[in-house]
Amino acid sequence: MGGDHGPTVCVRGALLASQRIENLRFLLHGDQAQIEAQLALMPTLKPLCEIRHAERAIVMDEKPAQAMRRGKGSSLWNAVESLKAGEAAAVVSAGNTGALMAISKLQLRMMANFERPAIVASWPTARGISSVLDVGANVEGDAEQLVEFAVMGAAFHRAVHGATKPTVGILNVGSEDQKGHDEVREANSLLRAADLDLDYRGFVEGNDIAKGTVDVVVTDGFTGNIVLKTAEGLARYFANELKTTLTSSLIAKLGALVAIGPLKAMRSRLDTARINGAPLLGLNGIVVKSHGSANANGYAWAIRVAADLARSDYSQEIARNMQTLMASTPRDTEAEPKTGVVG
Amino acid sequence: MGGDHGPTVCVRGALLASQRIENLRFLLHGDQAQIEAQLALMPTLKPLCEIRHAERAIVMDEKPAQAMRRGKGSSLWNAVESLKAGEAAAVVSAGNTGALMAISKLQLRMMANFERPAIVASWPTARGISSVLDVGANVEGDAEQLVEFAVMGAAFHRAVHGATKPTVGILNVGSEDQKGHDEVREANSLLRAADLDLDYRGFVEGNDIAKGTVDVVVTDGFTGNIVLKTAEGLARYFANELKTTLTSSLIAKLGALVAIGPLKAMRSRLDTARINGAPLLGLNGIVVKSHGSANANGYAWAIRVAADLARSDYSQEIARNMQTLMASTPRDTEAEPKTGVVG
Repeated sequence: MGGDHGPTVCVRGALLASQRIENLRFLLHGDQAQIEAQLALMPTLKPLCEIRHAERAIVMDEKPAQAMRRGKGSSLWNAVESLKAGEAAAVVSAGNTGALMAISKLQLRMMANFERPAIVASWPTARGISSVLDVGANVEGDAEQLVEFAVMGAAFHRAVHGATKPTVGILNVGSEDQKGHDEVREANSLLRAADLDLDYRGFVEGNDIAKGTVDVVVTDGFTGNIVLKTAEGLARYFANELKTTLTSSLIAKLGALVAIGPLKAMRSRLDTARINGAPLLGLNGIVVKSHGSANANGYAWAIRVAADLARSDYSQEIARNMQTLMASTPRDTEAEPKTGVVG
Repeated sequence: MGGDHGPTVCVRGALLASQRIENLRFLLHGDQAQIEAQLALMPTLKPLCEIRHAERAIVMDEKPAQAMRRGKGSSLWNAVESLKAGEAAAVVSAGNTGALMAISKLQLRMMANFERPAIVASWPTARGISSVLDVGANVEGDAEQLVEFAVMGAAFHRAVHGATKPTVGILNVGSEDQKGHDEVREANSLLRAADLDLDYRGFVEGNDIAKGTVDVVVTDGFTGNIVLKTAEGLARYFANELKTTLTSSLIAKLGALVAIGPLKAMRSRLDTARINGAPLLGLNGIVVKSHGSANANGYAWAIRVAADLARSDYSQEIARNMQTLMASTPRDTEAEPKTGVVG
């Protein structure tokens, strides 16, 4: 159990989740004494939990390669191992993202036809929540990967955010088919041609994210990571501006006090806790990353995402769509050269 | 004279600019009758202007290639021609961006050692204003182009936003030197090695933009365009949320009325008009793009950017830094293959 706050937030998050979601049970991997001390305060949660003591935790700045080599016996390693062994239906971790991805990939392996996991973010929009991926698992994305992101993102969105046939768009610098670089144009052609169980809408632009133009926004991990962090920075900037404004004078404070109800409602609408929980998609198993700085409420949302995925048939849906894709499009294999295959 | 609002906004923008900046004179290219009707209402502006009638305007959705072939005699073409002829020191246009770029490149040509123009955006941050480029002139950016963006961005920032030695960072998915794809890592090495007249700080992440961590944020045109439009969309979303909140009930409206002074001050701090005016850098001549939907105040800011650049030695500074770069780094020439040169 990790993250910036240690096991306290995780155990409290489990308590909140157990109050909101039926029939949850928990394997808690970490320092037994610390976890027991927390559970002693939570008599309703305790019977739902089994503690698995781990001698060590992987620290937040440990390099993924090192975590993979020396991670055995750590709480993160053990959690993924218990998923692989079928003891758990999903793993939730607030720990080191790179280590979580490396250890998950090593132990669980990728689903057939996938090369690397993608991380998906839930993004609040004017129309609800959109799923944006990849937000940082990969630094490049060729056309085939973008198509895979579309398939995985649609399955995730249906399982967690409840659209029956999610709309999907590829992020680009313009909406016309001839816009952008080779990778996005190829992916656009592939998705237009493929008969998949999703509603492909073509290219979308940056301003379409906040509008909620499509349910699933597909982009490479480089652009996705930068866009997500830019938005997080901007949200913090606006929140600070508003706070400064409404405390800048006695009269401003009075105004804020009068309007405190609606202002609180707005804060709760924009609360990032409610969009916490970013799964690593494409693995043989459900692994959900909680933000390192998430509070107990945020952690409970990450658990909800894991539970929704575990109770859905999202991995079968991905497998079905991938089979359709493979049947309609020749794809890279180890023996073929990388270029000249897609198209 | 174009943009979404036609000549009205441009002429009013010129009036505002003439009141704020000394010794401006204007060549107004467009429909003579329309412009004269506007100027008749502005006796202080009229003596500073000379009207150059144009039979046609390039429409907003005209393709750049078509605009280049058939653009001769249009107001946009004539404006760039008057710059080339030395009659004007800078061109400001709210028209079709692609056409403006194509016609400017055709008539003015690129500065020595530059391949394509970059568009720079001025971005309000917690510390003031940062310059972000490229935000859409190019859909890819190799290492050498990113280095060129750093040189051009620093010269722009000094001329327009007044930093003596601008700090520069490359946008990436992490701040450590080994993060990201080949292009950003190569550009990072080149900038660390080169002895340029700017303060290079290494990689920055998306959330550093709103923080104002560096004066100049360098990125490829694909990422830059998407990041800029995402931020614009998010800003609109927050503004709508706040407006909805403060008009959601009588009590909320009362609170907003009490705090109206500070709220108005906030709106003016975040007003995008004050960051309008995005130059196309790298051309032999100063060409500034005003947002198509900008109001007169926004257009006046674009004129200010053009005047600041025209009165600075920014093109000499770019030439100096490029010479330093060329001396220290072997670069592509027509005769050499594209790969294997940088590094």
